[in-house]
Amino acid sequence: MEKRRVLTGITTTGTPHLGNYVGAIRPAIEASRDPNNESFYFLADLHALIKCHDPKRVQESRREIAATWLALGLDTDNSVFYRQSDIPEITELTWLLTCVCAKGLMNRAHAYKAAVQDNEAEGGADPDKGITMGLFSYPVLMAADILMFNATDVPVGRDQIQHIEMARDVAGRFNHIYKGQYFKLPEARIEESVAVLNGLDGRKMSKSYNNTIPLFVSEKKLLKLIRKIKTNSLEPGEPKNTEDCTLFQIWQAFANESQIADMRQQYENGIGWGDMKNALFELVNDHLKEPRSKYEELMNDMGYVEEVMHKGAEKARAEAGTRIDLLRKTVGFGSFV
Amino acid sequence: MEKRRVLTGITTTGTPHLGNYVGAIRPAIEASRDPNNESFYFLADLHALIKCHDPKRVQESRREIAATWLALGLDTDNSVFYRQSDIPEITELTWLLTCVCAKGLMNRAHAYKAAVQDNEAEGGADPDKGITMGLFSYPVLMAADILMFNATDVPVGRDQIQHIEMARDVAGRFNHIYKGQYFKLPEARIEESVAVLNGLDGRKMSKSYNNTIPLFVSEKKLLKLIRKIKTNSLEPGEPKNTEDCTLFQIWQAFANESQIADMRQQYENGIGWGDMKNALFELVNDHLKEPRSKYEELMNDMGYVEEVMHKGAEKARAEAGTRIDLLRKTVGFGSFV
Repeated sequence: MEKRRVLTGITTTGTPHLGNYVGAIRPAIEASRDPNNESFYFLADLHALIKCHDPKRVQESRREIAATWLALGLDTDNSVFYRQSDIPEITELTWLLTCVCAKGLMNRAHAYKAAVQDNEAEGGADPDKGITMGLFSYPVLMAADILMFNATDVPVGRDQIQHIEMARDVAGRFNHIYKGQYFKLPEARIEESVAVLNGLDGRKMSKSYNNTIPLFVSEKKLLKLIRKIKTNSLEPGEPKNTEDCTLFQIWQAFANESQIADMRQQYENGIGWGDMKNALFELVNDHLKEPRSKYEELMNDMGYVEEVMHKGAEKARAEAGTRIDLLRKTVGFGSFV
Repeated sequence: MEKRRVLTGITTTGTPHLGNYVGAIRPAIEASRDPNNESFYFLADLHALIKCHDPKRVQESRREIAATWLALGLDTDNSVFYRQSDIPEITELTWLLTCVCAKGLMNRAHAYKAAVQDNEAEGGADPDKGITMGLFSYPVLMAADILMFNATDVPVGRDQIQHIEMARDVAGRFNHIYKGQYFKLPEARIEESVAVLNGLDGRKMSKSYNNTIPLFVSEKKLLKLIRKIKTNSLEPGEPKNTEDCTLFQIWQAFANESQIADMRQQYENGIGWGDMKNALFELVNDHLKEPRSKYEELMNDMGYVEEVMHKGAEKARAEAGTRIDLLRKTVGFGSFV
């Protein structure tokens, strides 16, 4: 049986936080060790430019994310880990796909349509106000990300299914126009049960809400942030509900079965929020202590991280190079002889 | 005084004809010898994919155009001659520019608007019917073509001025966002007096009218085609008008002053169309004999042409590589160390 090839992009505009870790990073790193998968992970820095024109932020985020994934034990022998911008074949392929992609397809992209709706809601004259070609055309780049490596499975949330459908559409058109099976049609692997963590204010933990707990902060800072998590005003001794409780939700994400059962009992027994927060800190901190020290080591040894990224790029380009050569010939480019 | 840097793209979907030669190729090749210019000429094969999905046609056209320009004496020591698709830095730059380019700018592009108007005239429901992202977004690629080498002058016809304005707009935005003078703003060098030749049927010589005289055909074929040029029905001995006469127009494009004056006299004297056609054939053939044999030699020695293109690509990439490295750093990419 052919191995499934799984491709995951990581946008490089933020600093990884607990929510990212639980929802995306941890499962992806587990998958990187699965011998039945060929996994491709990339820092989607070309995509980052759509949202972020602050070079320091982009570079910092790239470093932090690379160091984070390595510190958490990404298996770079059994996977390919690279920076998108290190693979120039991807933008070449983007152009080849651009020439077979219907504009109408992009008109229907959710992110673009949402931006147009916002403009219309504001009542302005130009529905495309403030919209860049980057925002409009990035699904083509995404198709190139996927098709460059003929990924079979792309883990996505429900809101991303359309992107995979677009990649399939573009791949199918290219295959049809150039009369060959150049690209496999990728499949969305829909993550129904992605763990979502709430943030300090009880809303979904997200950079845009400014309510995150960064994954690797000092113990002191971690404790401070956990203490800031919003709770209700029940006193110690009063029984508490585990439902809709951010503290318990984070507890669940890090604890084993028996620890979860135990804490559930303590909630019934009326554990005080202060005690719960201390316990949560201990649990999370135990979990992160080792990778955090590894992370700090890596952040102080960017030469090593650079080397890892370099090797990843070489691996990726070995394959991308072969494929782009074939595609160049396919469209009528390549050597004259 | 700084040298002007002149950049010219040649679309690779057709076979060069007399009209191309007189209007574009001959003046460009003369300019390639001008020591006051740094000239960049490229086979615009990435653009060719917008119009042409026939790989054989694209490759054939690339070969024919390369061999034509070399046979006609393009000075590749004093200029840079390359295939666009050999410079992957161009598609990388295209993406960087895509992320700062307003979608509204592309909405206003003439070629796109014309395609929409055609759809609307047909009364269909979808104004974007049949329009690819290639057609919609190629002005960004064109901006990258120009800005990749910081060209100062881009010779264009009036219908292309908008593209240069768009390149200036995108360059200015990038400079503004990333706070530096990364790109010079290119200037359109408007060719007011481009020589236009008419074709066999008296309309402008153009592939789309199927009325062309290919530049390098056999003598026999050249004579045959010249004999097919449409004339009026005036008999030998009747005085003829040089105005609106395709034969005289082509004569002018190849003759020297005294030959032109002489032929004007012969028109007044009532030269017969058959004699004129024979004279025209001799004139044009004398002109093309040597480059034609060089062309045939090159078409049979693609190894040599490939070598020339390879050297051109190396020259171009040496500069493109340095510039893209700087731009990568500028947006937040590049090495972690």
